[in-house]
Amino acid sequence: MSARRQLHLNAFLMEAGHHEASWRLPDSNPRADFDLRHWIELAQLAESAAFDSLFLADGPALTGTGEFRPPGQLDPLTLLTALSQATSRIGLIATVSSTYNEPYDLARRLASVDHVSGGRAGWNIVTSAGASAAANFGLDGVPDHAGRYARADEFLRVAKALWDSWETEAVVADKASGRYADPARLHRPDHRGRYFSVAGPLNVERPPQGYPLLVQAGSSEDGRDFAARHAEAIFTAHTTYERAADFYGDIKARARAAGRDPDGVIVLPGIVPYIGSTQAEAQALAQQFDDLRVPAYGLRQLAAVFETEPSSFELDEPLPDFILARPELEGAQSRSDLIIELAVREKLTVRQIISRLGGGRGHFEFIGTPDQVADTITAWFEGGAADGFNIMAPALPSGLETFVEHVLPILRAKGLFREAYEGTTLREHYGLAVPANQFHQARQPDQVH
Amino acid sequence: MSARRQLHLNAFLMEAGHHEASWRLPDSNPRADFDLRHWIELAQLAESAAFDSLFLADGPALTGTGEFRPPGQLDPLTLLTALSQATSRIGLIATVSSTYNEPYDLARRLASVDHVSGGRAGWNIVTSAGASAAANFGLDGVPDHAGRYARADEFLRVAKALWDSWETEAVVADKASGRYADPARLHRPDHRGRYFSVAGPLNVERPPQGYPLLVQAGSSEDGRDFAARHAEAIFTAHTTYERAADFYGDIKARARAAGRDPDGVIVLPGIVPYIGSTQAEAQALAQQFDDLRVPAYGLRQLAAVFETEPSSFELDEPLPDFILARPELEGAQSRSDLIIELAVREKLTVRQIISRLGGGRGHFEFIGTPDQVADTITAWFEGGAADGFNIMAPALPSGLETFVEHVLPILRAKGLFREAYEGTTLREHYGLAVPANQFHQARQPDQVH
Ligand SMILES: Cc1cc2nc3c(=O)[nH]c(=O)nc-3n(C[C@H](O)[C@H](O)[C@H](O)COP(=O)(O)O)c2cc1C
Ligand SMILES: Cc1cc2nc3c(=O)[nH]c(=O)nc-3n(C[C@H](O)[C@H](O)[C@H](O)COP(=O)(O)O)c2cc1C
Repeated sequence: MSARRQLHLNAFLMEAGHHEASWRLPDSNPRADFDLRHWIELAQLAESAAFDSLFLADGPALTGTGEFRPPGQLDPLTLLTALSQATSRIGLIATVSSTYNEPYDLARRLASVDHVSGGRAGWNIVTSAGASAAANFGLDGVPDHAGRYARADEFLRVAKALWDSWETEAVVADKASGRYADPARLHRPDHRGRYFSVAGPLNVERPPQGYPLLVQAGSSEDGRDFAARHAEAIFTAHTTYERAADFYGDIKARARAAGRDPDGVIVLPGIVPYIGSTQAEAQALAQQFDDLRVPAYGLRQLAAVFETEPSSFELDEPLPDFILARPELEGAQSRSDLIIELAVREKLTVRQIISRLGGGRGHFEFIGTPDQVADTITAWFEGGAADGFNIMAPALPSGLETFVEHVLPILRAKGLFREAYEGTTLREHYGLAVPANQFHQARQPDQVH
Repeated sequence: MSARRQLHLNAFLMEAGHHEASWRLPDSNPRADFDLRHWIELAQLAESAAFDSLFLADGPALTGTGEFRPPGQLDPLTLLTALSQATSRIGLIATVSSTYNEPYDLARRLASVDHVSGGRAGWNIVTSAGASAAANFGLDGVPDHAGRYARADEFLRVAKALWDSWETEAVVADKASGRYADPARLHRPDHRGRYFSVAGPLNVERPPQGYPLLVQAGSSEDGRDFAARHAEAIFTAHTTYERAADFYGDIKARARAAGRDPDGVIVLPGIVPYIGSTQAEAQALAQQFDDLRVPAYGLRQLAAVFETEPSSFELDEPLPDFILARPELEGAQSRSDLIIELAVREKLTVRQIISRLGGGRGHFEFIGTPDQVADTITAWFEGGAADGFNIMAPALPSGLETFVEHVLPILRAKGLFREAYEGTTLREHYGLAVPANQFHQARQPDQVH
């Protein structure tokens, strides 16, 4: 009896929605970022629909100038911790940078979130490309791309050793004798490497999931290699089925080459769905968002991706030649590639490019009816381009409500998505086991407690 | 009509209690550290009694070997965030090290806790003396004492500038025009100093309390100076009224000399109360704890304070001469001083010293009836040795329950302690104002939004 392969759904949450102008909609809460009630409402909505997880992106710097769009965000691990107390089953994934944190501190915080959430923590590991983040942490420029990934790799090795530093049987808690723990089962990683020296042990017991779910979203060569080595779920952005399928195949092959089971690496592209009960209604909804854009904002965003000035662009012309001719930029490689590719393929003007990037920022925008959305998700899932999706509603909560009410029932009718949670931890939702403890030692029977 | 000066009470929580052997009591939960229900129960108990705040101590390293006592603890800010969702009024104070954190990251996390708790966050600023902490953060030894305090001072200046970086009027959120924030009211501290270079602005809106409540517990010269400059509440440990009164006078004088209102610096010594309905019952309770000690544990603790080996001590002899003769040790100065002073004054053997340190670790242990406890608190409060107390129950929750049930009604009958909360934020409970924003600029009327 083999159960049907199940689709995984992650609710990628962002302020009043993923569209840059979502905060301007009549129903939007423009101060959603710092309003805990907004986030609790979203988390409970996603949990009531049995989503595998919710996800918060992040960078340790103000986003833009704030002039046209909310520029801040609560610390994502703090927000997730608060949300863990307003939910009981949904997984909780936060982005945290391996470039601007210390492994002892971050491993401890992630383990703590896993404890207080009952095994629901996930970590989206990013290496933080932005110059503004570097300037908040004493650096004059962004560390180079390869160096950031080398640090990330060492960071993960240290973090795993710290999470493993308490064997499951370490605590004896024998009130009669006064013996609390078996010091031989509390291990010191004593790591000395290029980026870190960390003695340990961690001062937090191994978390319920062993390690938080490890998530990654790199798309460069280094990023994919890192993902193939460490990631258990991969977020990715593709505007076409073909590119998504290529990426899917590539990642699974790299995982296999790294000696891992490719089914243990869940690939989740993003989709930004504009849903209407007819195609025309869906188009009108998308148009409503488009009309709320401030063009000056889109120009600034585009200029930032290509590390140039907004004045380099003419709204009703194609991308300038010096950009089309330029070699890959480090740090934003894949982002700029994707935009150039899209612009050339579809012969877009700058205004059109900006419009296409507003909602999805390089993700797959889909305008259609609930059936069309469900069919597309099914086609990617069954065709080998996705193990599930990052659902990126253009407006929140409304876009997520529509998806839950109108698309999920179709996916359920197809037998692709759960009716209710079966497990209680994030790993269980994704069908992933608790990792083995690298320090675990079998004991002689007479030594076993 | 002047209201009676009010006593402040902080519930200093620690695993199954402050006594080293508390986990061995028949009713204790020996795995309290990682059991969120334990902490929620304590937080709700303290809130139901209208305590000003609860407090978690911390250090970024395993405590001891774990052999005789629980050696770990959840990350305190994570735990407080979870507790913020199970309570609505009590203040939440976490210890975080200024030596092993970065100001941008920590300022953001503290601001985030203040947001999700509705203005209830407090930060106990410590500089972390232990060598085991240093070894978890890439250092071969503990940075020197003066350097740690210099870093702490710069850390605070950066953190305050970051918390101030959003003026209250920065967010306009004008849906009609598409203008979100006024960039002129989002300030970049652009700090460049000896320890940190931080551009800013913070990516979190100014928190409800302006700054989290700033708490400190240093007792060295540098520590007191730092406290006089920055702290709004001060935790301190004294075994006699005289020493507490000296400290109280000294701190208030230093605050005055630093140009601050001494009433804005709340001094809170610790008390470890062993309470019985008769003096004999209280003694029997204290004896029960004493009987559960493992002497090997106390010897190790004592050896650590004096940076020597447990074998340097004989249980039934006084402290060895080489310790009595030694100059102050850096990093643990006040701790070792206090122990030597106590040992000499009361002519204690090593066994007796260990017994005295087990519960209070240098704090004031008091064995008596509810009336005696209340009278002592009142005498310190009215005599000028305390503005309130850190209540350090030897066992938790039982010791806190006894205090709430039997001592608080007496303090309330005297008019010294509130019946119920009047404010909603931690600053309001302590009678402290939201700090002014250093970047606030008055605008011309026509510039005001
Ligand atoms: C769905 C998704 C979410 C992402 N979230 C973040 C994020 O929160 N913070 C961040 O710095 N980068 C984020 N990224 C960017 C990637 O981590 C990565 O830096 C980027 O794709 C460039 O790839 P590279 O690092 O391999 O060069 C995200 C990417 C995707 C596809
Ligand atoms: C009630 C109280 C709580 C304290 N909590 C901590 C703590 O959680 N972590 C820590 O490293 N030190 C803690 N300390 C120690 C002080 O921060 C300080 O390091 C110590 O008193 C030595 O003083 P000095 O730093 O001025 O030399 C505490 C002290 C007291 C009195």
